[in-house]
Amino acid sequence: MATHLLTFTCPDKAGIVYAVTGVLAHYQLTILDLQQYSDPDTKTFFMRVHFGHVDDTSHLLQPLNSLNLHTTFQIHPSTLKPKVLIMVSKIGHCLNDLLYRQRAGLLNVDVPVIVSNHPDFEPLAKSYGIDFHHLPISAKDPTSKDAQESKILSLIKEHNIELVVLARYMQILTPNLCAEMSGRIINIHHSFLPSFKGAKPYHQAYDRGVKIVGATAHFVTKDLDEGPIIEQQVTHVGHAQSAKDLVDRGATVETQVLASAVKWWSERRVFLNQTKTVVFN
Amino acid sequence: MATHLLTFTCPDKAGIVYAVTGVLAHYQLTILDLQQYSDPDTKTFFMRVHFGHVDDTSHLLQPLNSLNLHTTFQIHPSTLKPKVLIMVSKIGHCLNDLLYRQRAGLLNVDVPVIVSNHPDFEPLAKSYGIDFHHLPISAKDPTSKDAQESKILSLIKEHNIELVVLARYMQILTPNLCAEMSGRIINIHHSFLPSFKGAKPYHQAYDRGVKIVGATAHFVTKDLDEGPIIEQQVTHVGHAQSAKDLVDRGATVETQVLASAVKWWSERRVFLNQTKTVVFN
Amino acid sequence: MATHLLTFTCPDKAGIVYAVTGVLAHYQLTILDLQQYSDPDTKTFFMRVHFGHVDDTSHLLQPLNSLNLHTTFQIHPSTLKPKVLIMVSKIGHCLNDLLYRQRAGLLNVDVPVIVSNHPDFEPLAKSYGIDFHHLPISAKDPTSKDAQESKILSLIKEHNIELVVLARYMQILTPNLCAEMSGRIINIHHSFLPSFKGAKPYHQAYDRGVKIVGATAHFVTKDLDEGPIIEQQVTHVGHAQSAKDLVDRGATVETQVLASAVKWWSERRVFLNQTKTVVFN
Amino acid sequence: MATHLLTFTCPDKAGIVYAVTGVLAHYQLTILDLQQYSDPDTKTFFMRVHFGHVDDTSHLLQPLNSLNLHTTFQIHPSTLKPKVLIMVSKIGHCLNDLLYRQRAGLLNVDVPVIVSNHPDFEPLAKSYGIDFHHLPISAKDPTSKDAQESKILSLIKEHNIELVVLARYMQILTPNLCAEMSGRIINIHHSFLPSFKGAKPYHQAYDRGVKIVGATAHFVTKDLDEGPIIEQQVTHVGHAQSAKDLVDRGATVETQVLASAVKWWSERRVFLNQTKTVVFN
Repeated sequence: MATHLLTFTCPDKAGIVYAVTGVLAHYQLTILDLQQYSDPDTKTFFMRVHFGHVDDTSHLLQPLNSLNLHTTFQIHPSTLKPKVLIMVSKIGHCLNDLLYRQRAGLLNVDVPVIVSNHPDFEPLAKSYGIDFHHLPISAKDPTSKDAQESKILSLIKEHNIELVVLARYMQILTPNLCAEMSGRIINIHHSFLPSFKGAKPYHQAYDRGVKIVGATAHFVTKDLDEGPIIEQQVTHVGHAQSAKDLVDRGATVETQVLASAVKWWSERRVFLNQTKTVVFN
Repeated sequence: MATHLLTFTCPDKAGIVYAVTGVLAHYQLTILDLQQYSDPDTKTFFMRVHFGHVDDTSHLLQPLNSLNLHTTFQIHPSTLKPKVLIMVSKIGHCLNDLLYRQRAGLLNVDVPVIVSNHPDFEPLAKSYGIDFHHLPISAKDPTSKDAQESKILSLIKEHNIELVVLARYMQILTPNLCAEMSGRIINIHHSFLPSFKGAKPYHQAYDRGVKIVGATAHFVTKDLDEGPIIEQQVTHVGHAQSAKDLVDRGATVETQVLASAVKWWSERRVFLNQTKTVVFN
Repeated sequence: MATHLLTFTCPDKAGIVYAVTGVLAHYQLTILDLQQYSDPDTKTFFMRVHFGHVDDTSHLLQPLNSLNLHTTFQIHPSTLKPKVLIMVSKIGHCLNDLLYRQRAGLLNVDVPVIVSNHPDFEPLAKSYGIDFHHLPISAKDPTSKDAQESKILSLIKEHNIELVVLARYMQILTPNLCAEMSGRIINIHHSFLPSFKGAKPYHQAYDRGVKIVGATAHFVTKDLDEGPIIEQQVTHVGHAQSAKDLVDRGATVETQVLASAVKWWSERRVFLNQTKTVVFN
Repeated sequence: MATHLLTFTCPDKAGIVYAVTGVLAHYQLTILDLQQYSDPDTKTFFMRVHFGHVDDTSHLLQPLNSLNLHTTFQIHPSTLKPKVLIMVSKIGHCLNDLLYRQRAGLLNVDVPVIVSNHPDFEPLAKSYGIDFHHLPISAKDPTSKDAQESKILSLIKEHNIELVVLARYMQILTPNLCAEMSGRIINIHHSFLPSFKGAKPYHQAYDRGVKIVGATAHFVTKDLDEGPIIEQQVTHVGHAQSAKDLVDRGATVETQVLASAVKWWSERRVFLNQTKTVVFN
């Protein structure tokens, strides 16, 4: 019989753990792993419970709902692979890494479709048997982005996409798409935010003479490079590295950071907490 | 009113979280932070609950005991400073670091007494107003270690010592003292175990030409350098570093690793799990 | 005009830098980057000089040889891509990473041929347009390894291979091949050596309860897992990670460590120094 | 006989290594370790040569000067301890760490004098036998800073101070003192610059929800927090850490970063390169 992941967010108050685990105990379900956090600033309660063993969990919905906690909760089988749509432009190390990981069983997701504003990675997508949609945007035609995004929204619906991953996708999404998929679009930014926002962060870092460069995986919001941060990592650099060297070293950090963020999301470890995240990792 | 830390270990079974949080809920106590882990190998349940707000917790003992879970549990006020006895020989960077941290409020412990088999650090101890006991061991007199350790056990009793920290103490403790203080003696070993057990680990590392050296904080057991590991960290080295350079670089790692392990222990985050540890950090 | 890399190893004595840079100065060549190290243990001098700008360097050979320094030296155009043969078994994250990097220009090597004792990665090789040779070994037939290795040596000759990379190749090479390609076979070992030599290192690490796991890139010698170490990296793990989790996290470290070692080798930064290495990075 | 460190900066051109090592070769001096870098942006040549063995190096000055390279060079015995003046306010972890390191032989400097705008660390200074000067500044009296800095300049002269270290000194120096001691004042900033400039960087980091915090050692210039960066390091943080936790974790990083920067400076490894640094480490 299967194990499941219950994720749970609600306004904080006394007795929530007791109430929720009471529902599980009533049905003789064992808790394998439980993580809980109450944010003192936002007064919000977050919990992730890994429990088992049962094949059908539909009988838990009514008792959990009737706890009357103004909660958002979800239950997923722990082996369920979330459907992920990956977007990319012309730089492919993150895409290549994610695709390899999901095939090798290092990343428990299903990638039915890849979207790009360039045709470059169609062969890579095909080599994995994944649908590739070349959906270009024309700088001259301001309506082309809206047209492109409605196609993306169609693909999201058609494939039951839970998560969109911007794997070095170099276009800004419209506020409309950001709102529609709030908490379900992860971007990799090639600097340790909030340093070096905007374009060419490695060149900015080179000019400043920093000794570390890094990368940031964050949820996308309408405010560019300001979304809630999921994970960051850095690597040391020195005076002898050129701006091109920083770009190359950063590539390794980017693949790692994005792979971690997507893995944690797929394991239901990542929660939105207003402008921040809670990550049970 | 104060917050408290409940730590809880017992054989795993369904319903424990529910039962324990039920006691807290019954008394209207809020959970601020809860971490739980069930080890699939040892079938043991571990939980740390940070709860509040109440000044006296004595009324919780009977209901928790009557849950009949064959449990070991403890409740401590979260601001309580555990009493720590530090032992040191002739190398003092860890001692100096721990003393500074506890005075500066970076480490919530109370150090009433320091023991050494050498007199070197009496002035440092005095500058912090801490009792210093020079308890030498004679290699010629095999009974001198037993005599020294009975004095140490007296000091432990006299000062209500909860934790002994071996901050580069270069003598092996007797199995008797190890057993008496099981789970309550932390040692810093100057290599990333299990590499380079035994004497002069940095020189062994230098001879092998490794590119990383590290340090390990672990509980002391009668089997030298085999105790359950609490924390490890490493630092990069290169061909140009001499064995002395490795010793010097390692010193920084040792202070960090030991300070982390003692801090986590003082916050009741560290649990013995047979030959391993569970660390909720 | 091109820049070049001069690498230089000889018994140490006074005046070598002066003598060598004198040859470059005589021909008005500029030094862009120079790194030098004299090992006090092996009394050996190592130097890497990046100089320019000139298209043909053949006129430097005679004057450098006539310095009479009992030296081993090489001059390569800095843009030259060394030919690399990759060997792999059934675990492909390192192979996939290396192939992507060389195509994306993150790794300045040319991979004309891949050898495996299993057929699994033929499609991946083909998608990069690289020759794939399935050269199995039979445990029942002790002569099959020798036969396989002579084919490998033929491929090395045929393709002018400079470096063999064992990218999770799970067979032991014969002492003959190790000797033939001394200093030109790099292996990735999935532990931070010397911890956890031999088989299933992540499972050994899990059983010991360590808090860090790592990987080691080293030159292959006839002594298994004892070759000179080029690079090591580690990652933190905790009590909640299973042995399978350690394997998965380790995969990321392995790809990074091996990519770094191959990159540095391709940039002529790695020197053999008896049982150790000198790495100018 | 002693070894020495020659540090050398000049406009780049062909033949410098040859010319300089020629002077050493002429006097039969052996190079133990040589590092060189030519910055393609600033067209500046940097070199550090560790050579031996000779007690007096005065005969090298004239030949090196007559190379006519418009150079800045210095020769120091490699065991010479540079005189360092430390400034501190009310937070002492960096001061305590530096003092312990220099006494334990981990840091090859001599600290004859400590200056503070507060009296708090007089006992610590005294326990190391170091002169302590309490030189307060009055916010009400704008001339008090000038008066304080002239006293500091007197102390610098009196004690032959080579380097001033701001070990969490919370006052801004005047442009006058910055200019006077250009390249000879190192500050520790408690963020990974350029993120979180200005006051309360850990609180800024907490508010932004970053997953890493760090520290930066940099040369002080008249532009606050904009000086050339010498070293940076970071540490991971998570959602459960409060702003106070970030401050505490940062303290460990600050001590490490500052100790590294001062150590490298004391070993003549750090060069100013306009708005950046060259660090041969």
